[in-house]
Amino acid sequence: MSEEKFDFTIDNLGPCTIPSPIKLSTVHGDYTANYVSDDSYVISNVNVFDKTKPVVLDSSNLMEKAGPREKIYFDPTHAKAGICTCGGLCPGLNDVIRAIVRCLNTRYGVKTIKGYQYGFRGFFPESGYEPLELDRYLIDEIHKIGGTYLGTSRGGGQRVSEIVDCIERDGINMLFILGGDGTQRGSYDIACEVEKRGLKCAVVGVPKTVDNDLMFIDRSFGFETAVQRAKETVAAVHMEAASQINGIGLVKLMGREAGFIAAAAALSSHETNFCLIPEVPFEMEGEHGFLACLERRLAKRGHAVIVVSEGAGQDLLQATGATDASGNKKLSDIGVFLKSEIEKYFKAKNIEINLKYIDPSYQVRASVTTASDSIYCERLGNNAVHAAMAGKTKCVIGLVHDKFVHLPIKAVTAHRNAVDPEGSLWRDTLDATGQPILMVNDKDKALEKMAAAVAGAKSKPSEQKKGK
Amino acid sequence: MSEEKFDFTIDNLGPCTIPSPIKLSTVHGDYTANYVSDDSYVISNVNVFDKTKPVVLDSSNLMEKAGPREKIYFDPTHAKAGICTCGGLCPGLNDVIRAIVRCLNTRYGVKTIKGYQYGFRGFFPESGYEPLELDRYLIDEIHKIGGTYLGTSRGGGQRVSEIVDCIERDGINMLFILGGDGTQRGSYDIACEVEKRGLKCAVVGVPKTVDNDLMFIDRSFGFETAVQRAKETVAAVHMEAASQINGIGLVKLMGREAGFIAAAAALSSHETNFCLIPEVPFEMEGEHGFLACLERRLAKRGHAVIVVSEGAGQDLLQATGATDASGNKKLSDIGVFLKSEIEKYFKAKNIEINLKYIDPSYQVRASVTTASDSIYCERLGNNAVHAAMAGKTKCVIGLVHDKFVHLPIKAVTAHRNAVDPEGSLWRDTLDATGQPILMVNDKDKALEKMAAAVAGAKSKPSEQKKGK
Amino acid sequence: MSEEKFDFTIDNLGPCTIPSPIKLSTVHGDYTANYVSDDSYVISNVNVFDKTKPVVLDSSNLMEKAGPREKIYFDPTHAKAGICTCGGLCPGLNDVIRAIVRCLNTRYGVKTIKGYQYGFRGFFPESGYEPLELDRYLIDEIHKIGGTYLGTSRGGGQRVSEIVDCIERDGINMLFILGGDGTQRGSYDIACEVEKRGLKCAVVGVPKTVDNDLMFIDRSFGFETAVQRAKETVAAVHMEAASQINGIGLVKLMGREAGFIAAAAALSSHETNFCLIPEVPFEMEGEHGFLACLERRLAKRGHAVIVVSEGAGQDLLQATGATDASGNKKLSDIGVFLKSEIEKYFKAKNIEINLKYIDPSYQVRASVTTASDSIYCERLGNNAVHAAMAGKTKCVIGLVHDKFVHLPIKAVTAHRNAVDPEGSLWRDTLDATGQPILMVNDKDKALEKMAAAVAGAKSKPSEQKKGK
Amino acid sequence: MSEEKFDFTIDNLGPCTIPSPIKLSTVHGDYTANYVSDDSYVISNVNVFDKTKPVVLDSSNLMEKAGPREKIYFDPTHAKAGICTCGGLCPGLNDVIRAIVRCLNTRYGVKTIKGYQYGFRGFFPESGYEPLELDRYLIDEIHKIGGTYLGTSRGGGQRVSEIVDCIERDGINMLFILGGDGTQRGSYDIACEVEKRGLKCAVVGVPKTVDNDLMFIDRSFGFETAVQRAKETVAAVHMEAASQINGIGLVKLMGREAGFIAAAAALSSHETNFCLIPEVPFEMEGEHGFLACLERRLAKRGHAVIVVSEGAGQDLLQATGATDASGNKKLSDIGVFLKSEIEKYFKAKNIEINLKYIDPSYQVRASVTTASDSIYCERLGNNAVHAAMAGKTKCVIGLVHDKFVHLPIKAVTAHRNAVDPEGSLWRDTLDATGQPILMVNDKDKALEKMAAAVAGAKSKPSEQKKGK
Repeated sequence: MSEEKFDFTIDNLGPCTIPSPIKLSTVHGDYTANYVSDDSYVISNVNVFDKTKPVVLDSSNLMEKAGPREKIYFDPTHAKAGICTCGGLCPGLNDVIRAIVRCLNTRYGVKTIKGYQYGFRGFFPESGYEPLELDRYLIDEIHKIGGTYLGTSRGGGQRVSEIVDCIERDGINMLFILGGDGTQRGSYDIACEVEKRGLKCAVVGVPKTVDNDLMFIDRSFGFETAVQRAKETVAAVHMEAASQINGIGLVKLMGREAGFIAAAAALSSHETNFCLIPEVPFEMEGEHGFLACLERRLAKRGHAVIVVSEGAGQDLLQATGATDASGNKKLSDIGVFLKSEIEKYFKAKNIEINLKYIDPSYQVRASVTTASDSIYCERLGNNAVHAAMAGKTKCVIGLVHDKFVHLPIKAVTAHRNAVDPEGSLWRDTLDATGQPILMVNDKDKALEKMAAAVAGAKSKPSEQKKGK
Repeated sequence: MSEEKFDFTIDNLGPCTIPSPIKLSTVHGDYTANYVSDDSYVISNVNVFDKTKPVVLDSSNLMEKAGPREKIYFDPTHAKAGICTCGGLCPGLNDVIRAIVRCLNTRYGVKTIKGYQYGFRGFFPESGYEPLELDRYLIDEIHKIGGTYLGTSRGGGQRVSEIVDCIERDGINMLFILGGDGTQRGSYDIACEVEKRGLKCAVVGVPKTVDNDLMFIDRSFGFETAVQRAKETVAAVHMEAASQINGIGLVKLMGREAGFIAAAAALSSHETNFCLIPEVPFEMEGEHGFLACLERRLAKRGHAVIVVSEGAGQDLLQATGATDASGNKKLSDIGVFLKSEIEKYFKAKNIEINLKYIDPSYQVRASVTTASDSIYCERLGNNAVHAAMAGKTKCVIGLVHDKFVHLPIKAVTAHRNAVDPEGSLWRDTLDATGQPILMVNDKDKALEKMAAAVAGAKSKPSEQKKGK
Repeated sequence: MSEEKFDFTIDNLGPCTIPSPIKLSTVHGDYTANYVSDDSYVISNVNVFDKTKPVVLDSSNLMEKAGPREKIYFDPTHAKAGICTCGGLCPGLNDVIRAIVRCLNTRYGVKTIKGYQYGFRGFFPESGYEPLELDRYLIDEIHKIGGTYLGTSRGGGQRVSEIVDCIERDGINMLFILGGDGTQRGSYDIACEVEKRGLKCAVVGVPKTVDNDLMFIDRSFGFETAVQRAKETVAAVHMEAASQINGIGLVKLMGREAGFIAAAAALSSHETNFCLIPEVPFEMEGEHGFLACLERRLAKRGHAVIVVSEGAGQDLLQATGATDASGNKKLSDIGVFLKSEIEKYFKAKNIEINLKYIDPSYQVRASVTTASDSIYCERLGNNAVHAAMAGKTKCVIGLVHDKFVHLPIKAVTAHRNAVDPEGSLWRDTLDATGQPILMVNDKDKALEKMAAAVAGAKSKPSEQKKGK
Repeated sequence: MSEEKFDFTIDNLGPCTIPSPIKLSTVHGDYTANYVSDDSYVISNVNVFDKTKPVVLDSSNLMEKAGPREKIYFDPTHAKAGICTCGGLCPGLNDVIRAIVRCLNTRYGVKTIKGYQYGFRGFFPESGYEPLELDRYLIDEIHKIGGTYLGTSRGGGQRVSEIVDCIERDGINMLFILGGDGTQRGSYDIACEVEKRGLKCAVVGVPKTVDNDLMFIDRSFGFETAVQRAKETVAAVHMEAASQINGIGLVKLMGREAGFIAAAAALSSHETNFCLIPEVPFEMEGEHGFLACLERRLAKRGHAVIVVSEGAGQDLLQATGATDASGNKKLSDIGVFLKSEIEKYFKAKNIEINLKYIDPSYQVRASVTTASDSIYCERLGNNAVHAAMAGKTKCVIGLVHDKFVHLPIKAVTAHRNAVDPEGSLWRDTLDATGQPILMVNDKDKALEKMAAAVAGAKSKPSEQKKGK
């Protein structure tokens, strides 16, 4: 099996010559935090299946540790910083913004921090959105509310030249971009254009994906908060289901290509009977299809709770012709589709059911962070600042094996991570739900079809995670 | 610097010959979870400071992965299991109990599961506490309440012979012990006595320490929940402080030898101005002592919030003679001590203060788990069962680099983990509070004293964590 | 203006001759709770507009106080009780069930308590749902979960004869029915049939309406909890709206004929800009219509939050032809209708908006009670038992002027209560939202139309509440 | 029995001649909120025990309704307002401040609103606390945090002359004072001094007492929130108790002279076994004393939860000599006293117990409001502004029979309300806890002693509430 290799080397704007103003220590034993050196690494692949094979120690397996450097690239008294948030909401955006501003302001003494509004829109003069002048006082309480203080929008990342025009115009030396993989690909292009023009501007991303589908990292910020909220929704729907005759609770959760939120909600709620995720195909009809399984569950226990990722079962939507009505986005909604199919099925069988469907996505996304996400965001923000001050660029901050590292944008956006249907997370999820391993009628045929689908997919279970 | 070495080899009761009844897969690509082999390891030390030095791949650096084995040691149709919970409360105990019972019952078909009550007490006939007969129905909802369904008590672990008498009498083949390091040392002794008597009983621990001071593992279960609750308390006390003239909020949190909860609460609350932990000594008096720092903070901002670990500043309690009153336990309470010293100090200076002191420990400990702790507990319990069924013994289950592993009790109880005063967690905490790095008057003298203290301490910052 | 008169006289099964076993006191000053006498009343109408007019003191203005009577009608050692819950979920059902069972069991010593399952279904033999035998131990923890322990269903109340057959068969002496006004009309018919057959069975209702639209009473149980949850949803949607370019948050809340939940959510959230309720008509089009008001708000503030009762604007759904597609229930959904109309409007004007729509009803309904609802439910349940033991029938328990009273089913089901558009609650709501008083174009024409509509409506602002 | 009479007549600064700028309606049927006339009253005493006796309709039984008047006293374009918060924290202070500022600013157009800081301190020049200039933008988000935005302090209310000097200096026309009964007595004196000097300044209070011991009103703001938080604490302590051998959970709650919070916490938690309040004396020793009752409970169920008001059992503290150590405030702490006595008692009997004591007061007081408290505070604030604009003075705003009214300070501060030991609230509380009605050994002697104590008490069960 040939594993894909990634290069974890981090780009620098140039040599660091300016002593850091934050005055840490270089010795042990003085009760003062130490600078982190560029020679500190974390081993990426910690799985060992053959003890006799030495561990590779090169740029494909070593990740550079994040943290404050003794010498930095930018003179903080003159450096100007910019921040923006792009794409959909995710718990913790304000926590990260706050941490970046505070670390720049308080620790390094950076005075000019511009908050570009509404994603990349804020860079385009015609939008009319002037950047906000940020300082530690202005943002002191924003972590107590959800959403993003800077506003957000989708798209715009392809207008690289205009964005860099703005960076040039405003004299920005470090740009912090909070966004998903689409956004980070934009960040990469921006960094390249910056380089081409000979500008001195570090582009550092904080990867945002509430779906938790980012490769290499332990988890994405906001994910735990989302699971907490999702769990609360599942609990409510379970109560509805359990109180009705053949009550069925159906919850659609976020997860376009990865079922992490759905699996975690199922595992944490202890009340889910079916968890449907994009990584594990299923069939609706037939003796072993989902509907028959659901019927058997109802017969046995009188109610059922179903958690479904928004990206699950997309092949079914086509197979049943549900998307024939051209352009009708609602029809490609797996939640609405399942609701309708379940109702049809039981109506045809003349079995009374009481189905309650809920899509809590907006409540989940806009939530204030849990304590552990709050801490995570704070530390991501701090490390993003340390990276930018040291002239690191084209990189994002990640948590790997519980340590903060720099990761090249190129590597982290190559693929998306996904739930491994044969790994321990999904194994424990199935144990918790009690659902059949595969809800298909002809397993061999199904496997074949799946193999074809996976081959063409952008998202795949990371090899890095396989051993989990 | 000579690093201490630990041996991560796991003890087995004997060869596994019985096919597992849980019917997983041994091939990839069939959408069925795979068994985990005994040859799967996780690298313990992922820090690399010198790329040219090969990574050691022996039992001092490889941890055995947890998970279901293809062949198991015990015949599940005849095996009898026991569970007990020992020591103080911690969020998640019921989640773990529930997971163990469900996995034994549902996955392996184990029918006899005895819940020994009130810690080790339940093993002693004279206590009068009969073991509960557990099954999946009885424990189905216990994760929704805090505390422990089995009851708990302290001590009793040294009565090894009597405990093993009970194991023998009841024919227990696998004993799951949820408890802290003291308890797990008892577990080890029990496992040794079991071995000596030639009994076939696996002893598997699930390490419990709300203080998060367990070596090697990413975090202990219940810790995140505790931090969530602690954060809420700090927020309340901050409101009190901010609403009064020279308002001072003082919160004592758990942490006998490690300040993880206090540091995390300070980091997550964003409203703490002083965080005092056992790992970082401080002085009360003098220009650079804590009281003067507090006075300066009040003069500048009008209020202050202090978070203190119960184990912080223990040397001060003696130094000030506060424990002279023989046997008065309250005087060794750092919270009460600080309250009294602060009040004395400002009274002497004729400065009005309004101090509110709270110790929320019981509320924190008895809390229902957050979603992520709930998931963690579920998976710890499942893996504990897989370990015991495979005849693993004298081990605990841990999460290391986001993977579940078996860890020898001997290794995990050798020392306690602690916050590294020179590491990134404490660095970020100091950034969040804005407090001075060291609140001492003569730094050199203080360092000397600390060095002496550390040398004699049982707890020390784990080398494993140094690179964080 | 001729005010409708109601008769608050309570029906009794017969004279009370049996000394109550709960041993309260009849004297003051002995620190022992006193029995409540049948001569204790509460004045219903506390509004005085003319001091010279004496207050009417007859059965149209005096409500009988609830509470334990010194003499009771049923011999508790032989009495058999039944309980059922009907209709949609509402927070607090389990709290009320628990209180009834505990009070019957612990206070009066009633031994046989049957829990009829799934609403009136449980009375019909063909349903196959055997009644549960309830006691205080079985239901001890049910208040910690939402939903209803007994299950619920809609309808069935018209099968009076069959229900009374079951009462007769099971020898039930007191039936507690938790349900809305449709259900309580059924209760009345059941009580009449019971009477006709000469059976000795008290029928006592606990009125359930999460919409809070019950006449005379201070508030219905579960309402406060619903508002708490609704507020949390509005807060989340506000965050979504505030983070997007022309972000619009749209929340549909419960309230078929009364806008209490929507108004309370708007008042408590402080973040709602438009609150649309059934009692206050509005137009979509025109300079003063809702859409133009919304556009002006967006132009001024960049985002907007709309809270709408499910029963608001029902005339619009017809007026715009939205319900032409025969039988399509979704089209009569005001939330979906508003979403679609808003999107059409701004698309036509080529104005970018970002609309997030959420319907949290199931989460709201299934919630565990807040502390004050929990207390309210407990006391409702206790008083229902005291009423039934004393042979009261054809009545429900209510809280009026902060006192528990007996109310005749006839009176409370005569009309529904509604928000008075000219009263103080709606005045304060408009102050909180800042929306125009009436979003119509020709006020006179609109008033005419409204007058016609109100004349035909079942629900109307209670005269009892007018003075609020 | 001669009932005390109160005069509910409200003082006015003078005739109202200025048309209100808020443009409400004076007719019914136009969908526009109506002004409230000075002739609208609410009957205070709604209890009827004798139908033949006409209801008194004079100033001793009619309370003036609050709300906006058609004609007002002050010209809003010139009027200056002041606000201050005094005494201990209570949930909702910021909600009320926000409502007052918004109503003044947005509804009436008042431009100058001074926020006096730290209670009455802010009026004294030597304190150095300048008043804050408040407007609707500044306070827009303060309801999301607990505490008080203006700061608070105790005392100072007796320095009437200096306070009125400040009112005169600043030209304040209406002063809103949020505080307890001590503070409101100060408000009264201030209003009198204002009158004496011929100043035009309305003094309107919003009564604050988290203990809920205010006479006449349905409930005080913040009380429900406090009960919600208290319930959560009791739940935690119950878990501790239930998990230990003879576990005892002891919670001290607020309630200096009235046990409403303790009773409500016990009722709502369903897990309290003993509720001790100031209104119901108890003895520690003897067969029927509290300690023996506790021992019996432990013997029967293995654990116990005790909720105690801070003001309960104050006679015991003296009786046992516990306060002999002069001036030691801690010894008069009933929580610490109970903890110590319980430990002594069981130690002497050689019975192992595990007692956990918690005093969550600061967490309870500083909490953000529940939705219903938030609404209540908003409406209290609005009505306070309407009252002041109409020149009402020496009054507070209250909620009586679910209607907002003006109440004379004189009347509401005459006594405190208390739990009626023979009323329905305490009856239901005893039912919930299952504790003995009176834990005394010689009932007659105890009653005598109690009668003497009550005669001398400032607080007593309101006659107004007797019928509840």
